[in-house]
Amino acid sequence: MRGDVTTVAVEHPSRWQSRVRAEVAVVVRDFVGDRCREYLETPETAVLGRVITDFACGGKYLRSAFQVAGWLTAQAECPAAIRAAGSVELLHCFALIQDDVMDQSPRRRGAPAAHVTFAEWHGRQGLSGSSQRFGESAAVLASDLCLVWAEQLLRESGVAAQPLARALRRYDLLRSELAVGQFRDVVNEARRRPTLPDVLAVARAKSGNYTVRRPLELGAELAGAAPTVLTALGRYGSAIGEAFQLRDDLLGVFGDPGETGKPIGDDIRARKATAVLVLARDHADGAARRELRRLDTATDLDDAAVARYAQIVEESGTRQRAERLIEQRVDEGIDALAAVDIPARADEILVHLARSCTDRAH
Amino acid sequence: MRGDVTTVAVEHPSRWQSRVRAEVAVVVRDFVGDRCREYLETPETAVLGRVITDFACGGKYLRSAFQVAGWLTAQAECPAAIRAAGSVELLHCFALIQDDVMDQSPRRRGAPAAHVTFAEWHGRQGLSGSSQRFGESAAVLASDLCLVWAEQLLRESGVAAQPLARALRRYDLLRSELAVGQFRDVVNEARRRPTLPDVLAVARAKSGNYTVRRPLELGAELAGAAPTVLTALGRYGSAIGEAFQLRDDLLGVFGDPGETGKPIGDDIRARKATAVLVLARDHADGAARRELRRLDTATDLDDAAVARYAQIVEESGTRQRAERLIEQRVDEGIDALAAVDIPARADEILVHLARSCTDRAH
Repeated sequence: MRGDVTTVAVEHPSRWQSRVRAEVAVVVRDFVGDRCREYLETPETAVLGRVITDFACGGKYLRSAFQVAGWLTAQAECPAAIRAAGSVELLHCFALIQDDVMDQSPRRRGAPAAHVTFAEWHGRQGLSGSSQRFGESAAVLASDLCLVWAEQLLRESGVAAQPLARALRRYDLLRSELAVGQFRDVVNEARRRPTLPDVLAVARAKSGNYTVRRPLELGAELAGAAPTVLTALGRYGSAIGEAFQLRDDLLGVFGDPGETGKPIGDDIRARKATAVLVLARDHADGAARRELRRLDTATDLDDAAVARYAQIVEESGTRQRAERLIEQRVDEGIDALAAVDIPARADEILVHLARSCTDRAH
Repeated sequence: MRGDVTTVAVEHPSRWQSRVRAEVAVVVRDFVGDRCREYLETPETAVLGRVITDFACGGKYLRSAFQVAGWLTAQAECPAAIRAAGSVELLHCFALIQDDVMDQSPRRRGAPAAHVTFAEWHGRQGLSGSSQRFGESAAVLASDLCLVWAEQLLRESGVAAQPLARALRRYDLLRSELAVGQFRDVVNEARRRPTLPDVLAVARAKSGNYTVRRPLELGAELAGAAPTVLTALGRYGSAIGEAFQLRDDLLGVFGDPGETGKPIGDDIRARKATAVLVLARDHADGAARRELRRLDTATDLDDAAVARYAQIVEESGTRQRAERLIEQRVDEGIDALAAVDIPARADEILVHLARSCTDRAH
């Protein structure tokens, strides 16, 4: 027992996160590989498999890290926990591929988005009709496969039947919230001036819950955690999820394209209704506010206009305001953990994840 | 016992089909209603619930009929069988809503397609941006909810854990085949001249398996049917599924819009690569073939051109050829049932379904 404790203790949480990421990625790659051999063996369907595989193996694997961390609040790490965590990464592929179609985002993680890859394939094959429409249809179908396979991987993870059944109900909640959150996001995008409460409500439902809270609860439920632990994790997850989303919004305005893999001022250009941009509109005064309004209604923003927009956001004090909000939420999240009795190792990892996912450059 | 047998025997298979349709529809309506109350209570999301509910309660409910018929090969009818059959109808909503987006079909079952309803809603709400793109995004998100809820309904149907687990593997197969089949269909549409084997392969994977074979096997597996029964049902399902698809293709060319709910010559206008249209191209000779080729490459077909197209298909003998193929497949399907020992009631219903789904006007 003593030896075990020592072994676990020497692995720093950031090393733990890297190792778990690598192990979950192997699960995802192998599982997707098996499905490709099962369903995508013909020359014309192989492209579907390539796109899904490329997509599924990239990214930060933050959701699976939270899921495994949730598991650690009730049980020791084991292969079933890692396999089950692969599910949430495949589900994330589903969400990203569809989001990029709906937002018409050409790039993802510094590479062409899935619908762009399919459109290029359509062109190279000399197929008729619109390459763009073909690309979008193919991307939606690839996302369907990710959604179905994600759930299959969870069911076949090796987790015992009873906790699995309970966790699947939470999984249904996660997936339903995700689709409804995306719908509300699409509606907000189409509103000229959504309010901060609207935008925050969507951020909570869509990104916050989905990135932090639900995966964490899912992992804990799979491991059979007590209701009091689930409640505390829910509080931690809500707060950290909101902080994560605020960081994302700041990066969407001030992020370095070399780090984020997205064009500079991406959210400004896409006129995304993020909390940061709504905060800026609410706090900019006089001339600055009028200038934002003018930029908000301009038909197209060139690089200079995007840079000017970011400058106004900066000068309105929004950046510091958002940074303060992030700090508060991280503190609230970490405080919530103190209210319950969870293993020291799980606590250490959750504190690390709270800090690292809200203080990042990409 | 005697009384039971008499009661069952008096219900003609077509009455059985109507009653089962009604019972499954109640399950679907109630289940979707519960999910709407759970997730779609805000004024802006209520439209999602309305569209899904309208969609889920319409249609022929053929897939659920085959699923319950499959169940009857191993067990007596019961509420769990009916609930589980609702799942495949919700899954069908998912498929139809997405197909209509990809095909840009404006109408479904004589009413606006889901993406059109969402686009109209976007217009009425005075939202900014393209109503068409909004409608398509919202429709894809509605289809996501149908896919997730379909699986939830199956898992919560009340079928025992062990047969349910086996059936879920088949359900994964059904859903994966469906997405891959739709991808191959989209590729075929974009090919100028797909071959008959390509078109038939897709029809088998996409529509045939999905409409008849897989729901039937799913029902049988849920009821714990023996492997020999599953094999025979697989053979029946493949043959009847192909005949069903051929009938669909004939209706796409010669169907009465008042009955089908689709514009006359819909498949011709949409340049669908159906087996019937490919057969016509292969069998029309000389001048007729040249005329078809000219129509195939014309940028737009008016009503007269569509009527002329249908006339050439008729004169090429394709209609009789397809009718003969349908007859053969129906006979093959019914013959496959004779090879195994299934209850007389299941046999009677399967023979009825084979005939009615391949000999219909809508």
